[in-house]
Amino acid sequence: MNKVLVFHYLSKMTLTGSALFLLPAIVSLCYGEFETVPVFLLTGAGLAALSLPMTLIKPKTKDMYTKESLVIVAMLWIVFPLAGAMPFFISGEIPRFVDAVFESVSGFTTTGSTILTDVESLSHGMLFWRSFTHWIGGMGILVFALAVFPSSKDSMYLMRAECPGPQVGKFVPKGKNTAMYMYAMYGALTVVTVILLCAGGMPLFDSLCHAMGTAGTGGFGIKNAGVAFYNSAYIDGVITVMMILFGVNFNIFYFMLIRRFKDVAKNLELRVYLIILAVSTLLIGANIFPIYKSAGESFRYAVFQVASIMTTTGFATADYNLWPAFSQMILVLLMLVGACAGSTGGGFKVQRLIIVFKNTAKFFKKLLHPKSVNLVTSEDKAMDSDTVHGVHCYLGICLFLMLGSMLLVSLDNQDFATSFTSVAACFNNIGPGINKVGPMENFSFFSDFSKCVLSLDMLLGRLECLPIMMLCVPAVWKKKF
Amino acid sequence: MNKVLVFHYLSKMTLTGSALFLLPAIVSLCYGEFETVPVFLLTGAGLAALSLPMTLIKPKTKDMYTKESLVIVAMLWIVFPLAGAMPFFISGEIPRFVDAVFESVSGFTTTGSTILTDVESLSHGMLFWRSFTHWIGGMGILVFALAVFPSSKDSMYLMRAECPGPQVGKFVPKGKNTAMYMYAMYGALTVVTVILLCAGGMPLFDSLCHAMGTAGTGGFGIKNAGVAFYNSAYIDGVITVMMILFGVNFNIFYFMLIRRFKDVAKNLELRVYLIILAVSTLLIGANIFPIYKSAGESFRYAVFQVASIMTTTGFATADYNLWPAFSQMILVLLMLVGACAGSTGGGFKVQRLIIVFKNTAKFFKKLLHPKSVNLVTSEDKAMDSDTVHGVHCYLGICLFLMLGSMLLVSLDNQDFATSFTSVAACFNNIGPGINKVGPMENFSFFSDFSKCVLSLDMLLGRLECLPIMMLCVPAVWKKKF
Repeated sequence: MNKVLVFHYLSKMTLTGSALFLLPAIVSLCYGEFETVPVFLLTGAGLAALSLPMTLIKPKTKDMYTKESLVIVAMLWIVFPLAGAMPFFISGEIPRFVDAVFESVSGFTTTGSTILTDVESLSHGMLFWRSFTHWIGGMGILVFALAVFPSSKDSMYLMRAECPGPQVGKFVPKGKNTAMYMYAMYGALTVVTVILLCAGGMPLFDSLCHAMGTAGTGGFGIKNAGVAFYNSAYIDGVITVMMILFGVNFNIFYFMLIRRFKDVAKNLELRVYLIILAVSTLLIGANIFPIYKSAGESFRYAVFQVASIMTTTGFATADYNLWPAFSQMILVLLMLVGACAGSTGGGFKVQRLIIVFKNTAKFFKKLLHPKSVNLVTSEDKAMDSDTVHGVHCYLGICLFLMLGSMLLVSLDNQDFATSFTSVAACFNNIGPGINKVGPMENFSFFSDFSKCVLSLDMLLGRLECLPIMMLCVPAVWKKKF
Repeated sequence: MNKVLVFHYLSKMTLTGSALFLLPAIVSLCYGEFETVPVFLLTGAGLAALSLPMTLIKPKTKDMYTKESLVIVAMLWIVFPLAGAMPFFISGEIPRFVDAVFESVSGFTTTGSTILTDVESLSHGMLFWRSFTHWIGGMGILVFALAVFPSSKDSMYLMRAECPGPQVGKFVPKGKNTAMYMYAMYGALTVVTVILLCAGGMPLFDSLCHAMGTAGTGGFGIKNAGVAFYNSAYIDGVITVMMILFGVNFNIFYFMLIRRFKDVAKNLELRVYLIILAVSTLLIGANIFPIYKSAGESFRYAVFQVASIMTTTGFATADYNLWPAFSQMILVLLMLVGACAGSTGGGFKVQRLIIVFKNTAKFFKKLLHPKSVNLVTSEDKAMDSDTVHGVHCYLGICLFLMLGSMLLVSLDNQDFATSFTSVAACFNNIGPGINKVGPMENFSFFSDFSKCVLSLDMLLGRLECLPIMMLCVPAVWKKKF
């Protein structure tokens, strides 16, 4: 591996990223929280100071291969959450380092699991920073860096390593331009969310934080009661719709912008995604009707929770720990499905689910009619067998990592549902699970060891395993590789 | 599909199988339970009477394809458990039909889950019948029929459809002979188990029932306290060793018989199986040491439970519901792994796990070195990609069926661990799960609907999904297929 190249790129990205700390500093300033302003400025300056010398070492060759790009992405996603944890820790608002890292990783990976028992005790600057990490992490730290970065011919390589889903499409020939388009759409949709929330009477600061949490499908709240605090059907509705939109593949929005509506209409993933959302809402709505005794309320809570879990956001308007086991089981299954590929949502992704289904059906057919030729198609194009194969391998990797993590977390001696869903919720970047990690609970009771395991799970899930796993292969670090 | 052929074969097998009911009748006679003797005789006679006319209809062509063999096996496994439920139901010892079917399916599929709250209230004939279904089901109803059946050139086709594991080897050219060899080894090992148990002071009847439960990796007990009733380290030891042996691929025993020890030594599945058993035992033994305060006792219970769950037998000497979450989680993971391919055990099978691992590693390598050529090998031979592909598809099918079943069972509003492990335990033919379906509990509290779902899961798991799924494809029933 070309280590000089890796560190060169990495340092350029962290240098660019260090500017991000200005924003929460400004927010702190606005709210007169003068003690937290230097915390953000110092962290940003520190990161820049560490990055600057490394940017000056120029690599001899600029040929970037898959392995280099994977390592850059993995390291970026380790450096950034660590830097992001500093303001929490230095300010003392999250006094324990492991907790600060957990919170920061949870933010950047758009998981939204928290170790805070009283979120309302945080300063405005910190609350903004928490939600802002969601916004950055949603579209990708790297995509952000690419969007503001001097153009590079290798940027698509890098984007592929960070973007979720089995196949990464690019809208326009240059990776840099794709990144800019994506951020433009992302930003526009976020602004729309802020405006809609403000229109419903939510204060501007709250709207901003919730909009960023929704856009990144993160789910950090700023009230102890979560979104339920506002108790407004309008706000629930806005967040529900926006969560569903942010769970859609961004290609769809691009197609709509350039008026390729046919491509939107024939997108199978979109249809399956909406069908799963609708069916789950109907089943849960009917199942919880006896609790709320009003069809309107039942379906309002059902659709919000379904959208929140499936898009891997994790906001809550109701404590589904109190719902019947059937509704809870649907939510657990949705945790494992996740949102659309190419969205800000996490999880296994609807597209992969479709590929596994189609391929298994094909295998079944082939078994009965050995001479038939069946291809797995995606939008009328036959899919190349490597992609199909990769999806199956990814399923195996996910299962292995999740089950292994559950074993490690079970050392904390929590009940089965807590161990199972805490890992499922972290690995799939959702946030809350059931029982002790339910929507009205938090992750503070876990041991430091479990917090580390869960933090690693969040990173593995967000980056779809490969980049982080690469770091653990000793051969990757050898010169001749 | 050639329906005449299917029913011709099917009826010949059920006719052969109807003789099985003589054995429990003899046992009943020996114990002077004269009211149950006619129950068994009538059921056997009824099955024979229904089969006989169909055997007379001769098919025009005898060409058997995969689809025909799958349908025969599936129907055989539906007809037999239904017939097997009759003695329980007619005698009134299990008064509800759904319960009788559940118990019979659980017996034949070697699951060992029971709906009985007081197993000691059953007559000797019924207890023998329960355990005898394990013995028949372990090696396969069809393999039994083939072993006693006039030779047929299509028998390997049929055996493939029933035998567990991704690849079915045959010892000798003729399927009938392979079936006979297998039954001979199976019988011999069972007799050894009976002798060893009797030597430990266990009554003959108890030894016979436990030996059949061990051989089939079933797990039906005849005492309310399970194997813990005998409270003997010797008996625990014998059953542990025999469970482990019956979880081994029968090819291994054949290789040992014909002195091909090299093939035994280089068998990767065997090594991985033993390593998993050893590591799990060590971890659990250490984890439960604080409970038993004696290393000997801790490891005695640990190894028994690990062997019982991994071989999918399901006997219990300790209530692991009281063990720490870590030990429980190991047992749940073992439930999902299962025994070796080609053994009487169920589950996903160690061999498949190895294939998924190897193939994923290969995929990973390929991604980093696109030009490298890596093949998945099994015992030094490169595996054909269809087998590898099939294993991945099978993983997908298992996950989908298990998660779907969990959703259906959750309608009973049990806790998550109960819903999850009841399905895992039934689908993988283990028996007990955790919490309300723990080793000292039973399945009687489930609704009839859940009992039907779980019965179907047992059948799906035992036949590795395909045959049962075939029955649900409407096209299979058409003439031109």
